[in-house]
Order: sequence, then structure tokens, then C-alpha cells
Amino acid sequence: TIRAIPKEIPVILDAKRNDIGSSAEQYAKAAFETWGADALTVNPYMGADSLAPFLAYEEKGVYILCLTSNPGAADFQIPGDLALRVAESATRWNGARNIGLVVGATQAERMAGVRAAAPDLPFLVPGVGAQGGSAADVARTGRMAPGAAWAPGFVVNASRSIMHASSGADFAEAALRETIRLRDEINA
Amino acid sequence: TIRAIPKEIPVILDAKRNDIGSSAEQYAKAAFETWGADALTVNPYMGADSLAPFLAYEEKGVYILCLTSNPGAADFQIPGDLALRVAESATRWNGARNIGLVVGATQAERMAGVRAAAPDLPFLVPGVGAQGGSAADVARTGRMAPGAAWAPGFVVNASRSIMHASSGADFAEAALRETIRLRDEINA
Repeated sequence: TIRAIPKEIPVILDAKRNDIGSSAEQYAKAAFETWGADALTVNPYMGADSLAPFLAYEEKGVYILCLTSNPGAADFQIPGDLALRVAESATRWNGARNIGLVVGATQAERMAGVRAAAPDLPFLVPGVGAQGGSAADVARTGRMAPGAAWAPGFVVNASRSIMHASSGADFAEAALRETIRLRDEINA
Repeated sequence: TIRAIPKEIPVILDAKRNDIGSSAEQYAKAAFETWGADALTVNPYMGADSLAPFLAYEEKGVYILCLTSNPGAADFQIPGDLALRVAESATRWNGARNIGLVVGATQAERMAGVRAAAPDLPFLVPGVGAQGGSAADVARTGRMAPGAAWAPGFVVNASRSIMHASSGADFAEAALRETIRLRDEINA
């Protein structure tokens, strides 16, 4: 499936990998070489050395989980400002300029805080659609300063609301329709 | 390979999985049903709802990453006492009594703090051997109170020091020898 996707469309593998160095090297190889993904999501819990093998692929993108879109984000990411510390650390580790952050659309109020902590990092934004996040909120709080290198600075990821737009024979047309609707909502 | 292991030997899959509910359900199914593992390691970053699909397998074991054995543990697990909060939360979530914690042998001084925060949770202890942790330290600080249900309360995981004990034709004998040596060190 990945190889059937036209090369100009980036493939972001949302696999949330994380392990110590020797294992992380193999996860990175699987994602970037075996599967040929252009970017991968990773989990920061184990810290810098666990992320280094992914970041070593300087031509690939690494989105670090920061503030996720699910209710459990409140358990550990918000207390102690963990998500903000992840954002600040990711900014420091971004020597190859290949880091982004996963920041959920369901946390629009907190997204502005993450943007302040990481003004230069692109956001991958799940949670629009099936999980209830608003594209308008994302476009307002997730964007970078005008003129920034990566502006507007975010990619909205919608999966279920598009893939499951119809379970009938019109599934392809329904998915296309929902994709265009979402794009237009973001642009508006 | 997993199916060739005698049933009385528990299989712990160190896959460090974590994702939102619908994806976590499939990771849990893969680990426990497809591969037939008896226990799995998971990453707590995304919180309670991301772990629930694993914990729903009440006859299986779920080891939650708490204080890992790698240098990067110092980045997020120690600041803000995150590892201790994970230990306390895991104790609250342990209704089915199928939760354990991953606590690295390289953090012997801090292991005692985690044991105080989670007196009833079994520890899975990596980092003895190749990573430099001491079995004697683990046996002293990782054990539960005498008479506890799961006493001594920890499993030491050694991988590289056993698998790579010899690269010669005697690899099987060398691995057995290193296994027995480590067992005796722990028991002593």
C-alpha cells in the first residue's frame, strides 16, 4: 500500500515507537528502510538516547508525541507540565531540523502553550473529526508566526472520519468528499 | 519461536506498545492472541485509556514502563517525579491484579522509591548484565516486604549478556552457563 502512494505525497507512519538504542535502531530501519515511510511518530518517555536512532535519519521526519488527543493525556502529559518539557527538549534536539510534535486538536487551549514552547516545530495534529477537535481552533492556535520557514506549521491528520465516511459502494467518493470538506474548513 | 517454548515458562514480550484505544486493542490482540505472549511491556505516556485495552486481558500480564535502564530516563522520568506518579497510578489501575512495572537495574538508588510508591506491583528489571546493573542491588531494593503475595516481587531480564555469551559453536552452553551464574548471583 505504501509503495502505491505517489512519491509527492508524504507517508507518515503513526506507529508511536520507542525503545533503547539497539532496539530503536531496528524500529527506525523498519519504518524508514523496509516500509519506506517519510516520517514516523515516536514516544518520548525513554528520553534522548531512545530517540537518537530515529533522528539519525536526517532526511526523514520524526514526530514526537507531546500532547495527545485522548482523555489519558491528562494523566501524565499535563501534570508537571510534561508536554511542555517535551516540547522544549525537542526544540533543543532539533539539530537536523527533522523533528515535529504530535499535538492533539482536542486540546486547543493547551496547544497555544506548546506552540509558545516550540515556535519552530511543525505539529502533526490528530483528533479533528472522529475525536471531536475543531479544524478552526487548530488553524488559529497551531500555526507558526507569519513568515516562519514551515508556515502554517501544522498537518492535520484525520483517519476514521475519512476512511469510514461511508461503508457502502460509494466509499471512495465519500472519503474524497470528506477530505475536501476538511481541507476547505482548515483553509477557511 | 514463542510456540516452541514450554508452557510452564512465561513469555514476556518487550514491545513497549502504546496507542489510543482502537489501535491499542489491535496491539493487545497481536501480542496476546496472535503471538500468544503471557505478558507485554507498554508505555504509559498516553495515560489510562491507552492502557485499558491491554489490562482487559485479565489473565495476561502488563508491565508498564516506569523507570527505565537507559541514560534518557533522566530526561522525563525523573524530573517532576514522573516515574513515581506512574507507579502510583499503576497501583490504582490494578483492579485485575495484572500490572507490573519496568524498573531498571541501573537505577538501584531510585528503585527503592518506586518500591515504596508501589509496594504490591511486581517489577520487571532490565539492565543487569550488558547495561551494568547489579543483581545484588536489585535483590536488596526491588523485593517486596517479606510475606507479600508475589515475593520476592521481581523478575530480572537479561538479554544480551546471555544471548551473546559466546559467538562460537559453544553458544548454547555459554548461554546456559551465564544464565545459571546470574541466577546464583540473584539468589545469593
